Amino acid sequence: MVEDATGPTLNTVARAIGVSRQTVSNAINAPEKVHPATLARVEAEIEQQGYRANNRARSLRIQRSALLGYCVRHPAWASVAVGGIMDRFVHAITRAAEQRGQHILLFTEDDSGPETAPEMAVYQDLFAHRVVDGFVLSDTHVGDQRQAWLAERKVPFAAFGRRWDSPERGPWVDVDGAAGTAAAVDHVVAAGHRRVAFVGWPEGSGVGDDRRAGWRRACRSHGLDDVLVRTATDGIDQGRALGADLLARGPDRAPTAFVCVSDTFAIGCLQAVRDRGLEPGRDVAVVGFDDSPAASLPGIGLTSVRQPIDEAGDAVVRLATDVLLDPGNTGERTEGLLLPPTLVVRTSSVAAT
Amino acid sequence: MVEDATGPTLNTVARAIGVSRQTVSNAINAPEKVHPATLARVEAEIEQQGYRANNRARSLRIQRSALLGYCVRHPAWASVAVGGIMDRFVHAITRAAEQRGQHILLFTEDDSGPETAPEMAVYQDLFAHRVVDGFVLSDTHVGDQRQAWLAERKVPFAAFGRRWDSPERGPWVDVDGAAGTAAAVDHVVAAGHRRVAFVGWPEGSGVGDDRRAGWRRACRSHGLDDVLVRTATDGIDQGRALGADLLARGPDRAPTAFVCVSDTFAIGCLQAVRDRGLEPGRDVAVVGFDDSPAASLPGIGLTSVRQPIDEAGDAVVRLATDVLLDPGNTGERTEGLLLPPTLVVRTSSVAAT
Repeated sequence: MVEDATGPTLNTVARAIGVSRQTVSNAINAPEKVHPATLARVEAEIEQQGYRANNRARSLRIQRSALLGYCVRHPAWASVAVGGIMDRFVHAITRAAEQRGQHILLFTEDDSGPETAPEMAVYQDLFAHRVVDGFVLSDTHVGDQRQAWLAERKVPFAAFGRRWDSPERGPWVDVDGAAGTAAAVDHVVAAGHRRVAFVGWPEGSGVGDDRRAGWRRACRSHGLDDVLVRTATDGIDQGRALGADLLARGPDRAPTAFVCVSDTFAIGCLQAVRDRGLEPGRDVAVVGFDDSPAASLPGIGLTSVRQPIDEAGDAVVRLATDVLLDPGNTGERTEGLLLPPTLVVRTSSVAAT
Repeated sequence: MVEDATGPTLNTVARAIGVSRQTVSNAINAPEKVHPATLARVEAEIEQQGYRANNRARSLRIQRSALLGYCVRHPAWASVAVGGIMDRFVHAITRAAEQRGQHILLFTEDDSGPETAPEMAVYQDLFAHRVVDGFVLSDTHVGDQRQAWLAERKVPFAAFGRRWDSPERGPWVDVDGAAGTAAAVDHVVAAGHRRVAFVGWPEGSGVGDDRRAGWRRACRSHGLDDVLVRTATDGIDQGRALGADLLARGPDRAPTAFVCVSDTFAIGCLQAVRDRGLEPGRDVAVVGFDDSPAASLPGIGLTSVRQPIDEAGDAVVRLATDVLLDPGNTGERTEGLLLPPTLVVRTSSVAAT
């Protein structure tokens, strides 16, 4: 390509900030190879000089793989009751990618080393070697470094899950957890309950805080106390212990309804209710979150907040492909997409008739 | 490449059987483009003439994608209790592929058209366009056409699941379902049961027939009747109905133990036992198959046959990569690998002490 010597070129940009021509070229065509601070300087100078090769060069970028990377976590990491939810999500993103001429490439977490950013090594490797064009993230969490890391290197991605601890960057889709727990409170209040507890995760988890905020907001809107909170990390046994602790407050002070951050905790609370000779639904209402396959089993019959997983999978792939197919779209201008959940009512929250 | 005009060449092979040079080249380098019958003739002639370009040409084959394709089925297809099993399998093949320098590419079933072999269109497309180097199959079933289709076109693959209805072709790994149900019978017989029923799928399903055969074999080895069989397609409600039908035979003729083809049926049988005022474990033993996440839930506590899913995922990827990395290995010489399951004992089959 013959460059116009009278206008800005790779060389004029490079000279102005004292880097090599290759560095400028990398900044345009392989930004993941350039240190973020240098990348920022190059980009500022490109804008300053009005160098226009950016989009053209990007569209000439080395042939796309038409692959989006997605990290599958070890199932043991997920709680027992969640089985089936990630199945749905993986199927949804696979189908959504196909509808956009892409495919999903799976990889596992890098658990190898003590580097500063060990979990990013595999992302770096896959993108630098052009194995994938971008990524779909899920399981975003407080302290998650992936979004900032990818955005700084201009790696296309979209996340199922908000960024909890820093300004928005990169597109995301999420489920409105607060709306889900608020709907759960409305549901049990409509059935006559006035002492509604929240059984959740310790503060700081993002997802858990969001679900707790919805419970609190709804309790206040109904003029109810919002002090009946118990937390633990995870597990049916922990849920059972938290439920038992709340029920031990005695007949005049114990909650008559439990809104839980997960089906796992809710199944534990069902046990705690039965342990005291009470009947779920008739004596104490229990509501879970996720509508996992376990919720519909006989002997469980758990009312639960269902996430629109298929819709979320479709949306996150659409956002990611929008970014990678449009070099001018970094995703930074894309607003987050918050999907409403639905409450699936079963016998754990309604008196049998 | 200059060919040795004195020895066998693409041209001498082509002329001998009246096909074009390109067809012979395709047979070597892109066999999926050649009609199976023609492919067989070309290969016979190559062997007849002693043409030696085969492996060399194969190793020069267009650059590999280092991707293995895997079809994810819609989770609704799987029964509710199976949630979590396919999660594990997908994680296992992803990790196993990485350990061999490969990645897993996901795709969904082609449900588009009325062609003769609609489900093969997507396999054909992915392989012909070099998107993948080969495939990992699961959910093999009686009437499954994939293995023969892939083997005829020399597409590398390995299957989790035997070929049920035709001679072995292509490598496979499977779990010894018959050994699992036999172990279930041994377990309940050791606890004193003498009337052991089998609750299964209708004959002809391959997987179901195998599990039934294990039950039958073990019953006979203990000198027990092997006539207490009930079948239905799937679902907790169907399992409950089958269990109820068996229990309705009366105290002297009803089984006191159920060995079930799936956790789904076993959970239904637990319901049927309770419906008659009996207690699982104490009065009637119930054993499932799959050790799904649901089996360990409180209120379920199901004894179940656990498949070594991680090991199966690792083995099927190893078999597939063995084939695709060694052009001389078509997998036809590879024997099937049958993995032993284990029985996980819970309260549904043992009297509480």
